[in-house]
Amino acid sequence: MRALVTGACGFVGGHLVRHLLEKGDQVLGTVFPPSELSAGQQERRFSFPHAVLDVSDAEACARCIAEYKPQVIYHLAGIAFVPEAEADFPRTLLVNVAAIDNIFRVCHLLENGTKVVLISSGEVYGKVRAADLPVTESTPIAPTNNYSLSKAMGELVAQRYARQGQSEVVILRPFNHIGPGQNNRFVASSFAWQLARMARGKQELCLQVGNLEARRDFSDVRDIVRAYRLAALNGHGVYNLGSGKAVSIREILHLLLEISGLDVRLKPDPARMRPSEVPEIYTSLDKARRELGWQPQIELRRTLSDVYHYWLQAAS
Amino acid sequence: MRALVTGACGFVGGHLVRHLLEKGDQVLGTVFPPSELSAGQQERRFSFPHAVLDVSDAEACARCIAEYKPQVIYHLAGIAFVPEAEADFPRTLLVNVAAIDNIFRVCHLLENGTKVVLISSGEVYGKVRAADLPVTESTPIAPTNNYSLSKAMGELVAQRYARQGQSEVVILRPFNHIGPGQNNRFVASSFAWQLARMARGKQELCLQVGNLEARRDFSDVRDIVRAYRLAALNGHGVYNLGSGKAVSIREILHLLLEISGLDVRLKPDPARMRPSEVPEIYTSLDKARRELGWQPQIELRRTLSDVYHYWLQAAS
Repeated sequence: MRALVTGACGFVGGHLVRHLLEKGDQVLGTVFPPSELSAGQQERRFSFPHAVLDVSDAEACARCIAEYKPQVIYHLAGIAFVPEAEADFPRTLLVNVAAIDNIFRVCHLLENGTKVVLISSGEVYGKVRAADLPVTESTPIAPTNNYSLSKAMGELVAQRYARQGQSEVVILRPFNHIGPGQNNRFVASSFAWQLARMARGKQELCLQVGNLEARRDFSDVRDIVRAYRLAALNGHGVYNLGSGKAVSIREILHLLLEISGLDVRLKPDPARMRPSEVPEIYTSLDKARRELGWQPQIELRRTLSDVYHYWLQAAS
Repeated sequence: MRALVTGACGFVGGHLVRHLLEKGDQVLGTVFPPSELSAGQQERRFSFPHAVLDVSDAEACARCIAEYKPQVIYHLAGIAFVPEAEADFPRTLLVNVAAIDNIFRVCHLLENGTKVVLISSGEVYGKVRAADLPVTESTPIAPTNNYSLSKAMGELVAQRYARQGQSEVVILRPFNHIGPGQNNRFVASSFAWQLARMARGKQELCLQVGNLEARRDFSDVRDIVRAYRLAALNGHGVYNLGSGKAVSIREILHLLLEISGLDVRLKPDPARMRPSEVPEIYTSLDKARRELGWQPQIELRRTLSDVYHYWLQAAS
């Protein structure tokens, strides 16, 4: 398949491009202008065929898609960090919502039957009552922050075009996914990064922690990107992606402590101790299993070990 | 009640401000900077207490609301013309979506228990199958253009804050409403404007028409703004507002021809003859009747007569 991957320099984008190339797909990844890339992103940038593209630029999007003529577009580009979206809603709307219109509008006009795999988020469900768990694709959405709002809005844009029939869309709602290469602003990566620095003697054996009780559905990014490709091949409508079970942040931390073998003092950070708005969430995998033939294969311990060793190498 | 009306210089805003003042409410209307107002808007501007405000400016919104301390905010400001929204989605997102966040964010922080009456649109339902008419508040939404998308997105923003409990919100989804003062870009107003110009000898007795078969739910703006105030007093959740029946564009035209008494030749415009995406739509009024004690009172013929005479005066 001839695939276009937007946001190919991101954490998930890098894993997806690698998987698609392994499967023999033809891939063009779009990346931010070099000046805006981090060192890690720069490195990923040069390992695959790529084009510079700001997806919020409608004309540039149109040119890129019209020239490359992809059979499938994996749209991953966007703001993925909740506090970043919270800090600037107008920019989030531009990058996470208007960009989706840019992509669909050109597919609609080209009438090439391009399929778009739109990456939304399990965050669109917001807070779900314990009695209504696990979440399924028909659980009502209730976004609670600018990030999840922008994801729900992006889905509305995609569904508009899907109804008009010129482009096919499959919407994926992955829950928390982790793996080597994830930015250390995200909790599991942050713990692993700090432990790796301690192992290298670059940080004292003390870890500041916030509320550890929130229970989330953590999966491995490499399982998630496999689902993206299966969705491009066989998917219709909306799919939740996750591990199918809830794990607390405390369990993530304890697994990482075990993996590191370090004896670390935990120091509660009062500023981050308030209870989470969403105490527990996890998804059903029934629809993804049944229609995509997908299920996660990588155990959480292996994922966390890989994340830890990624940071250990980075800190050497 | 101490009311803030955003978009007070608009067609509906003008009617709402008049109604609130008649009812003895205290009103501050927000208006665009004078340089951006049309002559008709300028005129409305100086007939009531007002402040200049661009609702897409977060700081200006915060200042205005914190100073005036309204008990209720009627949020009407925004892009209301479908082709205008279609032509510039990023701007539509800023004006119709980010502005709603600006308003709720300050209400949320002030914790004054301000109630927000959010004006969405019956357009959020998109195309509804004949078997599913009339539309009710639980009909699934399916927005089909940038305007209705932005309205659905604005609702998501409002619901986010409503769930957090610091501000109360009532969401209104009015269907097509017409009346004196409406811009002549809208179909009924456009017909009436052209007929008034013919009556004044300023246009030949020939009217270009597009597809006249689309059937819509037309109500009088003065009935609609009455519902806005009742919603501020007694409303919770979402309400559809309309006449409760469908009328074709052809019937609107024929009523206007009767009212004008002119013998006009109709000239089909091939460019506008394609069938409407939504052949027929009308709403149930059950919920608004039951919970707001509201129902429309003004007959369509009287509305159209008032619109015609408004333009007759303007063309004199």
